[in-house]
Amino acid sequence: MPKISRVRAILTAPQKTNLVVVKVETDQPGLYGLGCATFTQRFRAVATAVEQLEPLLVGRDVERIEELWQLMYQHSYWRNGPVLNNAIAGVDIALWDIKGKMAGMPVYQLLGGKCREAAAVYLHAQGRDEKQLEERCHMFLEQGVHHIRIQCGEFAYGGRDYSGHRPDGSLPGVYYDPRAYMRLSLKTMEHIRKVFGDRVEILHDVHERLSCADAVDFAKQCESLRLFFLEDALPPENIDWFANIRQACTTPLAMGELFNNPREWIPLISQRLIDFMRMHITQMGGLTPARKVAVMGELFGVRTAWHGPGDVSPVGHMLNLHLDLASPNFGIQEFSPNYNWDPDKKLGMDERLQEVFPGCPELRNGYLYANDNPGLGIDLDESAAAKYPPIDILDEWTQSRLPDGSLHRP
Amino acid sequence: MPKISRVRAILTAPQKTNLVVVKVETDQPGLYGLGCATFTQRFRAVATAVEQLEPLLVGRDVERIEELWQLMYQHSYWRNGPVLNNAIAGVDIALWDIKGKMAGMPVYQLLGGKCREAAAVYLHAQGRDEKQLEERCHMFLEQGVHHIRIQCGEFAYGGRDYSGHRPDGSLPGVYYDPRAYMRLSLKTMEHIRKVFGDRVEILHDVHERLSCADAVDFAKQCESLRLFFLEDALPPENIDWFANIRQACTTPLAMGELFNNPREWIPLISQRLIDFMRMHITQMGGLTPARKVAVMGELFGVRTAWHGPGDVSPVGHMLNLHLDLASPNFGIQEFSPNYNWDPDKKLGMDERLQEVFPGCPELRNGYLYANDNPGLGIDLDESAAAKYPPIDILDEWTQSRLPDGSLHRP
Amino acid sequence: MPKISRVRAILTAPQKTNLVVVKVETDQPGLYGLGCATFTQRFRAVATAVEQLEPLLVGRDVERIEELWQLMYQHSYWRNGPVLNNAIAGVDIALWDIKGKMAGMPVYQLLGGKCREAAAVYLHAQGRDEKQLEERCHMFLEQGVHHIRIQCGEFAYGGRDYSGHRPDGSLPGVYYDPRAYMRLSLKTMEHIRKVFGDRVEILHDVHERLSCADAVDFAKQCESLRLFFLEDALPPENIDWFANIRQACTTPLAMGELFNNPREWIPLISQRLIDFMRMHITQMGGLTPARKVAVMGELFGVRTAWHGPGDVSPVGHMLNLHLDLASPNFGIQEFSPNYNWDPDKKLGMDERLQEVFPGCPELRNGYLYANDNPGLGIDLDESAAAKYPPIDILDEWTQSRLPDGSLHRP
Amino acid sequence: MPKISRVRAILTAPQKTNLVVVKVETDQPGLYGLGCATFTQRFRAVATAVEQLEPLLVGRDVERIEELWQLMYQHSYWRNGPVLNNAIAGVDIALWDIKGKMAGMPVYQLLGGKCREAAAVYLHAQGRDEKQLEERCHMFLEQGVHHIRIQCGEFAYGGRDYSGHRPDGSLPGVYYDPRAYMRLSLKTMEHIRKVFGDRVEILHDVHERLSCADAVDFAKQCESLRLFFLEDALPPENIDWFANIRQACTTPLAMGELFNNPREWIPLISQRLIDFMRMHITQMGGLTPARKVAVMGELFGVRTAWHGPGDVSPVGHMLNLHLDLASPNFGIQEFSPNYNWDPDKKLGMDERLQEVFPGCPELRNGYLYANDNPGLGIDLDESAAAKYPPIDILDEWTQSRLPDGSLHRP
Repeated sequence: MPKISRVRAILTAPQKTNLVVVKVETDQPGLYGLGCATFTQRFRAVATAVEQLEPLLVGRDVERIEELWQLMYQHSYWRNGPVLNNAIAGVDIALWDIKGKMAGMPVYQLLGGKCREAAAVYLHAQGRDEKQLEERCHMFLEQGVHHIRIQCGEFAYGGRDYSGHRPDGSLPGVYYDPRAYMRLSLKTMEHIRKVFGDRVEILHDVHERLSCADAVDFAKQCESLRLFFLEDALPPENIDWFANIRQACTTPLAMGELFNNPREWIPLISQRLIDFMRMHITQMGGLTPARKVAVMGELFGVRTAWHGPGDVSPVGHMLNLHLDLASPNFGIQEFSPNYNWDPDKKLGMDERLQEVFPGCPELRNGYLYANDNPGLGIDLDESAAAKYPPIDILDEWTQSRLPDGSLHRP
Repeated sequence: MPKISRVRAILTAPQKTNLVVVKVETDQPGLYGLGCATFTQRFRAVATAVEQLEPLLVGRDVERIEELWQLMYQHSYWRNGPVLNNAIAGVDIALWDIKGKMAGMPVYQLLGGKCREAAAVYLHAQGRDEKQLEERCHMFLEQGVHHIRIQCGEFAYGGRDYSGHRPDGSLPGVYYDPRAYMRLSLKTMEHIRKVFGDRVEILHDVHERLSCADAVDFAKQCESLRLFFLEDALPPENIDWFANIRQACTTPLAMGELFNNPREWIPLISQRLIDFMRMHITQMGGLTPARKVAVMGELFGVRTAWHGPGDVSPVGHMLNLHLDLASPNFGIQEFSPNYNWDPDKKLGMDERLQEVFPGCPELRNGYLYANDNPGLGIDLDESAAAKYPPIDILDEWTQSRLPDGSLHRP
Repeated sequence: MPKISRVRAILTAPQKTNLVVVKVETDQPGLYGLGCATFTQRFRAVATAVEQLEPLLVGRDVERIEELWQLMYQHSYWRNGPVLNNAIAGVDIALWDIKGKMAGMPVYQLLGGKCREAAAVYLHAQGRDEKQLEERCHMFLEQGVHHIRIQCGEFAYGGRDYSGHRPDGSLPGVYYDPRAYMRLSLKTMEHIRKVFGDRVEILHDVHERLSCADAVDFAKQCESLRLFFLEDALPPENIDWFANIRQACTTPLAMGELFNNPREWIPLISQRLIDFMRMHITQMGGLTPARKVAVMGELFGVRTAWHGPGDVSPVGHMLNLHLDLASPNFGIQEFSPNYNWDPDKKLGMDERLQEVFPGCPELRNGYLYANDNPGLGIDLDESAAAKYPPIDILDEWTQSRLPDGSLHRP
Repeated sequence: MPKISRVRAILTAPQKTNLVVVKVETDQPGLYGLGCATFTQRFRAVATAVEQLEPLLVGRDVERIEELWQLMYQHSYWRNGPVLNNAIAGVDIALWDIKGKMAGMPVYQLLGGKCREAAAVYLHAQGRDEKQLEERCHMFLEQGVHHIRIQCGEFAYGGRDYSGHRPDGSLPGVYYDPRAYMRLSLKTMEHIRKVFGDRVEILHDVHERLSCADAVDFAKQCESLRLFFLEDALPPENIDWFANIRQACTTPLAMGELFNNPREWIPLISQRLIDFMRMHITQMGGLTPARKVAVMGELFGVRTAWHGPGDVSPVGHMLNLHLDLASPNFGIQEFSPNYNWDPDKKLGMDERLQEVFPGCPELRNGYLYANDNPGLGIDLDESAAAKYPPIDILDEWTQSRLPDGSLHRP
């Protein structure tokens, strides 16, 4: 039985977004696995946490994934947070990759086999204004993508250069007005619905940028738009308000990318307060817990829509896809590894990412395809990765402020 | 006291739908009863289950129906499933038929007597498009039928020839798009409402072909149509979501044709989450349990609308009718023994069915009438039945797939 | 990719208990799988249901287990019953066996790997009286078994030779008095506790043989005995009464061997009304649904104790064990393949079962061990199986009666 | 089809208890039915109410019982009270009697047939003191009766000659002290348990003579006595307190003899707050509603224990018995037509009652037997009845007072 011989975190930023990949090596030559552990805002802490896991793991049997997961999870005593969960996830996913390779099977086969050939995706359309959004929708539709997340104007990523009615002496920075955001977003989505009719399934992400009261009303106002879903209407701290949204309207609700604690998803799913679970799989600890929650969703009528922007490494995208292919209750896959799609190019994984990660999933006609190689079917070219070292930056959009100069708070 | 002398399942398919009828014979010459045990998709398994019941029953007193029901029910230890319930139902109904004959009374008399002269029915109108549906509604209205189930287009029975954006390599088969189905159905029903106004009571059957989130929203969108009821918006596995529909809208809800376990109907009825119970009486074990559930519905304000398409034998239709006549909380009777009504003929039971089953209920001016003969008042001509042997087919509409190639799942 | 070429049910009764095993063969020479489909009381109906599945399956890809499960499940339209679930389970388990063989891995590896080396078991001690029970406990303890199910006297299996105050004219048969059963069982368990102290973990199975009111009180009276668990205090029809037991006492509760419908286990587990899930895995449809429910139990803090008496084939016992080894929330494994343990022999699988099923799990010192062969690691010797043809009998203990001559009812 | 030709109430008091029997005659010579309408405290109002029903009924079809019940029920607009319900019950039961005669079948056959040969009964043992109670228990046991209701001392019927600490000037009359009653009753029941062990199943009736707080505590104190049931711990006005009793203990609870409104029994049964339904069948409107509630109890795990003291006519006792024989969830039958059993005689129906009502049920060895004649199998000898005219008395035990001179209130 192969044993774990080495565990390390590899940092790379081919697209200027810091990615963390864990590589688990074994005492069997050539047998190793890769996992995603990307928590881009605190990537160094994750790397350190991976280092601290290595001595716990070396010499242990690679096939006892469930046991090792429990071991890593409880070994820190304090648990359920994003740094540790990502570190665990990196190892966990790598172990599933190894198990697939040992079985000579793609990971989706270990999960019960394909339920579908490929996973339908939704893409992000951000636009300065309605016109630019229209163009992007056209481009997406032409390439077969019908599920489109519509975010408009300065609000697309939390607002920029807002020159509203700020009080004197307020700090410089990124400002936005939640109620102006509501009005503009509704107007924009109505426009898109009018232009494209039922050819587009519209999605929208609130990014927790509303008060609870406004979130309830915004969901209600979205009802007549027949969204595919409305995402993150509420912050994790106020998920009890989903009950209020449920009472008010039938807008389908997606939630979960910020979750890392079972207390967040178990009640929401079992009480049927959300329709799509959107967890960032590495933030919850990897495939081992994610497939369990996927199963729970299946039993309670809630579908999956795993988190998949550029702050997920291609290893993580591939993992999402394997789970998508094997889950009966798959709903949709977010796929936006490139934060800005170039309107002149074919949609798909950025070339730099493909260079660093051979075997990336392929996007064709609105569906994402896995190859059928054993394990996850994706590799890491470490020398290519090294060409894109990580970058320490202070993210701006998590520093945004309300018109009165106060920090936006969840 | 007459004793059971023989129990057998008779298979016949006068309309190409496999029907299972149970004949219980007694040691008293000429005294026998008929019961429906039709589970058309697994008719052979039911026939075997009936065979396995015979040795338990022979020699027992025909009049102890309640006790024999309990005996059959618990004798298999594992219970509450469609094969065993149908087998039990076949015997149970036949015993009520015998009891009626022994009393010289129609079965409805044993149940407390007629509460009404005849049972109002709803019929199925399926149409390729709005035009064809309009024609069928006209035909139904002319013959006095005002309650009409409207199902439109390729979606009428789970989609056909769907040529959507399927992924490469997906399996051949019957495809449909749940959200396209929602839009077309709403549009069609709005059209029918516009054309016929209040002359038609519109019903619609979702056939569990939506996600839970979409089902809730679809019910909400149906609200302004003032349906008579919306059927099977949710699959049996997700009936907790009826609470979500209830808080979203007042669309009347019907459910139950797929039920076979008391855990399915007891909570729905006692929590007032549905308005019409639609059980397939033989799937729940026959008249003995059905009259109990009917009573429960009466106590909790829920009405009956027993399952009655072509996968119910005329013996089963007759049983539905007897229960309808005697139940204060009767709501409506589904009556569609012929899957395709011939637009040139008078509505009513197919001639081949009448040939095999002398004494069929009669449809006149939108109402279904029983004769007043003792027992169920219907017979089986075994030699006519033998002319239509059962057919082994692989049903297609329970294999339908979603656009991404995955099986539609409950 | 190998395709399914043949599906058949094999009936055998090495211990006079009818076992149903499904063999799925493929177009790849020598590659086949075995599944358990044992519903001993209606084994013939299961065999017919398996026959009706074969045409649906032949030619399909063996690795798409999840999809095939959904296909089999919904293809009958009516679902969730013991006959169909067993037939599906037989195929499903055989497909997992095949997948393991293709991967060169034991099935527990596909499920995430071993969490433990072996599964602790509980065995059945039935005794005429306290003395005989004491002897059996001694024998079990000597062989390392500490978890013992104590059932006493005529009540051990629903009463025998009961000569109570029956009314005139009551039917002959097996009688018992529920309240006398309560008193005797409590007295017996107290005796065993007194004799063996804490060396024995006491379990007890009510077999749903009490009224709801008595069941609540019986659980309460058991509290001071500190049972490992009390099983099937209530019938599936009345599981809402678990809430009453919960408010009355802390006696650990096990339930589920009679379940076959998700409506039975989902509410009990998610509302924390039971402590151990006891499902008969083939009655719920095989490994595919069982591992999902095991996961759900893990998320809600409920442990597994899968059904494992002689009405499970050795293939089924082996499957239980694979799931036990890989489930973090494993609790205990029932293991009683021989209805009557011979006090003079070493505990373990009956020799006739071992003859027919090479590779049986091994019981050593209170723990059950799997071999590490690929797949389930158990085979079927068809010529040996043929030596023990199935037997049609009318089970007596599901016909037991109360003192007033009425059938014991669930 | 026979029509109703005459409806009248017949009053008789063979045991000094006023009985009301309704006779429904038809236009078919010799065809008539009898029903019980006994509300002994207000028998004249019932008789008048029957008179008022006659014109509504004459000329109507005897077989439409369900419809006639609904008609009588809603025809008064205000409903659900004891006078009207008894009048309706008298007619309703008589119509079932007629239907049985027309079918040539005992009524239990119409209800699904016998589930048991006879109904186990409980009898009343009232005693001045422990010694007298012991004697009565001995007598009952010798005659095969094991279920005995134990009521002790002055409290047996609400207290008599109580000379407690009354305030000056308080009214003369029947007094009792609830807390003294509690203590004496517990002590007495403990004595009986000690003397007779498990040979006696002890029942006790509180007759709503405790405050809610005391009722909860009394039930808790009864727990270790393992009663068969505790009856009427609470008055109809405070049945919400059953939830408190449930939280406190597992003492089985019986309730209902005072009920006449569906709001009383539906919540109690569906929320599993009682274990035995004890309704006085004529107080709830007769067999038509009683069999519905019996069915409901079956579905929710609650058993029947219909009211059966001397304020039920033999026609009513016979009706109880028919329902007992046909109900799977029959629990026990109260049978105490004679308020004082003569210790020197064989237990059974009083001779005067037998004289007036030929065909009375027979008590043998603790079981009550029906004859197998068509209909209820009991008749009324009107000339014998006339020998025992009704008596206008002012009942004392419903005028009892607390020590401070206040009326005991429910």
